[in-house]
Amino acid sequence: MAKQEDQFKKVLSHAKEYGYVFQSSEIYDGLSAVYDYAQNGVELKKNIRDYWWKAMVQMHDNIVGIDAAILMHPTTWKASGHVDAFNDPLIDNKDSKKRYRADVLVEDFREKINQKIQKDIEKAQKRFGDAFNEEEFRATNQNVIRRQKQIDEISAELARVQEENDLAGFKQLIVDLGIGCPASGSKNWTEVKQFNLMFGTQIGASAENATQVYLRPETAQGIFVNFLNVQKTGRMKIPFGIAQTGKAFRNEIVARQFIFRMREFEQMEMQFFVKPGTQKEWYTTWKETRLKWHLSLGMGSENYRFHDHDKLAHYADAAADIEFNFPFGFKELEGIHSRTDFDLKAHEEFSGKKLQYFDHEENKSYVPYVVETSIGLDRMFLAVFSNSLQEEELENGTTRTVLKLPAVLAPFKAAVFPLVKKDGLPEVAKKIIEDLKWDFNVFYDEKDAVGKRYRRQDAAGTPFCITVDHDSLEDNSVTIRHRDTMDQKRVKISDLRDIIKAEVDVKTWLKKMEA
Amino acid sequence: MAKQEDQFKKVLSHAKEYGYVFQSSEIYDGLSAVYDYAQNGVELKKNIRDYWWKAMVQMHDNIVGIDAAILMHPTTWKASGHVDAFNDPLIDNKDSKKRYRADVLVEDFREKINQKIQKDIEKAQKRFGDAFNEEEFRATNQNVIRRQKQIDEISAELARVQEENDLAGFKQLIVDLGIGCPASGSKNWTEVKQFNLMFGTQIGASAENATQVYLRPETAQGIFVNFLNVQKTGRMKIPFGIAQTGKAFRNEIVARQFIFRMREFEQMEMQFFVKPGTQKEWYTTWKETRLKWHLSLGMGSENYRFHDHDKLAHYADAAADIEFNFPFGFKELEGIHSRTDFDLKAHEEFSGKKLQYFDHEENKSYVPYVVETSIGLDRMFLAVFSNSLQEEELENGTTRTVLKLPAVLAPFKAAVFPLVKKDGLPEVAKKIIEDLKWDFNVFYDEKDAVGKRYRRQDAAGTPFCITVDHDSLEDNSVTIRHRDTMDQKRVKISDLRDIIKAEVDVKTWLKKMEA
Repeated sequence: MAKQEDQFKKVLSHAKEYGYVFQSSEIYDGLSAVYDYAQNGVELKKNIRDYWWKAMVQMHDNIVGIDAAILMHPTTWKASGHVDAFNDPLIDNKDSKKRYRADVLVEDFREKINQKIQKDIEKAQKRFGDAFNEEEFRATNQNVIRRQKQIDEISAELARVQEENDLAGFKQLIVDLGIGCPASGSKNWTEVKQFNLMFGTQIGASAENATQVYLRPETAQGIFVNFLNVQKTGRMKIPFGIAQTGKAFRNEIVARQFIFRMREFEQMEMQFFVKPGTQKEWYTTWKETRLKWHLSLGMGSENYRFHDHDKLAHYADAAADIEFNFPFGFKELEGIHSRTDFDLKAHEEFSGKKLQYFDHEENKSYVPYVVETSIGLDRMFLAVFSNSLQEEELENGTTRTVLKLPAVLAPFKAAVFPLVKKDGLPEVAKKIIEDLKWDFNVFYDEKDAVGKRYRRQDAAGTPFCITVDHDSLEDNSVTIRHRDTMDQKRVKISDLRDIIKAEVDVKTWLKKMEA
Repeated sequence: MAKQEDQFKKVLSHAKEYGYVFQSSEIYDGLSAVYDYAQNGVELKKNIRDYWWKAMVQMHDNIVGIDAAILMHPTTWKASGHVDAFNDPLIDNKDSKKRYRADVLVEDFREKINQKIQKDIEKAQKRFGDAFNEEEFRATNQNVIRRQKQIDEISAELARVQEENDLAGFKQLIVDLGIGCPASGSKNWTEVKQFNLMFGTQIGASAENATQVYLRPETAQGIFVNFLNVQKTGRMKIPFGIAQTGKAFRNEIVARQFIFRMREFEQMEMQFFVKPGTQKEWYTTWKETRLKWHLSLGMGSENYRFHDHDKLAHYADAAADIEFNFPFGFKELEGIHSRTDFDLKAHEEFSGKKLQYFDHEENKSYVPYVVETSIGLDRMFLAVFSNSLQEEELENGTTRTVLKLPAVLAPFKAAVFPLVKKDGLPEVAKKIIEDLKWDFNVFYDEKDAVGKRYRRQDAAGTPFCITVDHDSLEDNSVTIRHRDTMDQKRVKISDLRDIIKAEVDVKTWLKKMEA
């Protein structure tokens, strides 16, 4: 655990130091749970977005994109259930004036009991050594049995009050467990209230006709309300998909873990419209296809796993997460959800408009079922960035920090160095850049010894370094160094474009999905 | 004028019919002044954004990008002046309950007087024919002289009340001119009030510590607050630029002209940081460079003009617009502003942090001056779309509707048709798509006669149509048809990629900037 936290801290400081992520409005001491992408971060983010878009839209002739506005008609969120049900239960401590999520208070309390059990187990383990049997111990140790019973009771009651939205029961549970304010210890609690996570704002100038609208809490609804317009003007035939990338906003109470859970974030979603009854097979297909996309980036298949949901959201008949091994453990990276016809039917009801597809083969109209793939672009950024940040022990006993980004996603594809700042070498280096920049982001650096420049580019994630030396003036060749292997090769300047292209080209990487 | 309006209506209906722009939340009867980009629109918008980014960031090794959040620390907008000064003067009619922008009421009134002058001139012109001299007429006709005097008086008083923010004087001007409510004619007005154009929202859950924040009304400030972090971590040397594309929001009172003025819109901005005293030459350089970018798209140099500002914003020492010939006349497409050190100094003052650059050559620190290039992505979309939509009389007497988008920006680069839906032709067509889709967005269509399919792709803006016929099975060749010339040629299937690439490649288009 300590090692994980340590690695996470390194990720945060590296992200700032190498121009990937800054705290938002840092000169004003930041805005909580909001971040800005810096000069390298914006390119990595853009490359991830493009890689997704190309795989999902350009490569599928039955998937098209849209770009719906963040501001939508407010009835959208009544139909989707967000006005009524997108809530967190909050409780205030009257003495400390601190506010908490009621469910988090209970969960943290339960976790403490669990940790006591773990301690008992660890102690017994030490005492009994190889002879220790955890199952037997749990079944016989009275302390553990009592605590496990308490955990089970808490879980059952928590599930009940959440299920029934029993706010008074929620408060009672906190009182019965004797939970105190984590900051002050005080047990002087208010009632539990529901707090909607949507950001609201007013549109229109006149006090009388200003309309309460919301910043969208998800991009999916922008696709559903446009479903029929896209289908008709694009003459799409089922099955077909509509994809979208864009910002969404949630006023999270407990926003944490850097860019993993932000108040302003970006989603990459695709809603796939299918014939009712075929959703299960499409759900399976999309689970597989999406995992292949992730694996194509070569970040290690051991870092991904599926988590199939037992408890389903009200709109779903099947749901799974693709979890990634983040610095703080396996967490959701992408969701694949079989959303049934819930959303389209709700919009039919609230808008009074038919949202049906006429199926020529079946010769009838129906509301399609929907299979969704939904990935957080910021989470994907964090997955790529944290997984790529590595420290390597070198043969000479030193360590190097290297950001082994998949080359297709790296912000800069190459850096070009003149060995020295004179003798015409900078001119040759700049001429190489003039030529390569039409195809790639290329970086120029002439400061410090070449070894130091190599290390800077290693840490920034640049796949290739190209060094111009005095021989270059004669043989029109340069030294190209590979970030991951540190191998160096002498190559013709005229071959540089093809050498780089072979490793960074989107096509090459996407083809790995077919492997 | 009637012809212009007619053309604008065609733009609107074509944008919907061919999947470029939909009204937002249309099934709920829309959200005023907000639009969604549809399946073709999203690609056109993306291609414009990429074309700008490539020209501004990738091609300049002293310009980097960022992607700052929409939500910023609220003090940002105090420093920038938006909290105090980003206002429209509003007035309500007590009888009709309608609300208006006071300045627009006065301007519309003044315009009516101007139209009367125009009518007098037109009448006289008809009467006197070639002998008519407008200048002389204006100087001698008593009606015209009287009206021109009234216009000048109104303009002077309007400028005064705006300058001095004299709200009572504003009201008095409306009363003195006897302006009535455009809807009801009533002259029963309230006082004039200031209305801030920023959308506000609350961040954080607790009632006591929720913070009033704003949706950014411009992207520029996201660059200024990050200036020093980017300069330091990117080791940038002055002069250098920071570029950004992203959404901004303004609660416009009178939002109109389709996507020209929206409440939610996207900006493409670059702030160029220079040594104080050099801003004038950089201002001139960027005016030229940006115009070249526009001209590279080949939409006719006669459709652009500079408009140098006489009246400057409080932060500027020089400013010009690049105006484009929209269907409703020449209007601002892009602004180039010499913003001085106003913004950075204001952020120094409000944050208490130094925002200075240490210039090694000069061996001193200073707050840089800033030259900004700022273009509305949605306006650029409208410029490209409306300019490209043309009706052509063909030799056979029919007309064709063709969307002559610059090929580099077209959503789909090619459409592939089997001549008939049998004999293995669809299979060959699909095989061509399988091959081309790695490089381009390619469309498949097998419905209706080929002539009709050609016309559909003309109207959708696709530069190339490729038809597979029975001979293709023997000679591995197809017919390729060019959207603009309608010329058809027989070419090898294996040559298709290079033929298309030559006309759609970003590099080829950007190189036109150097011409």
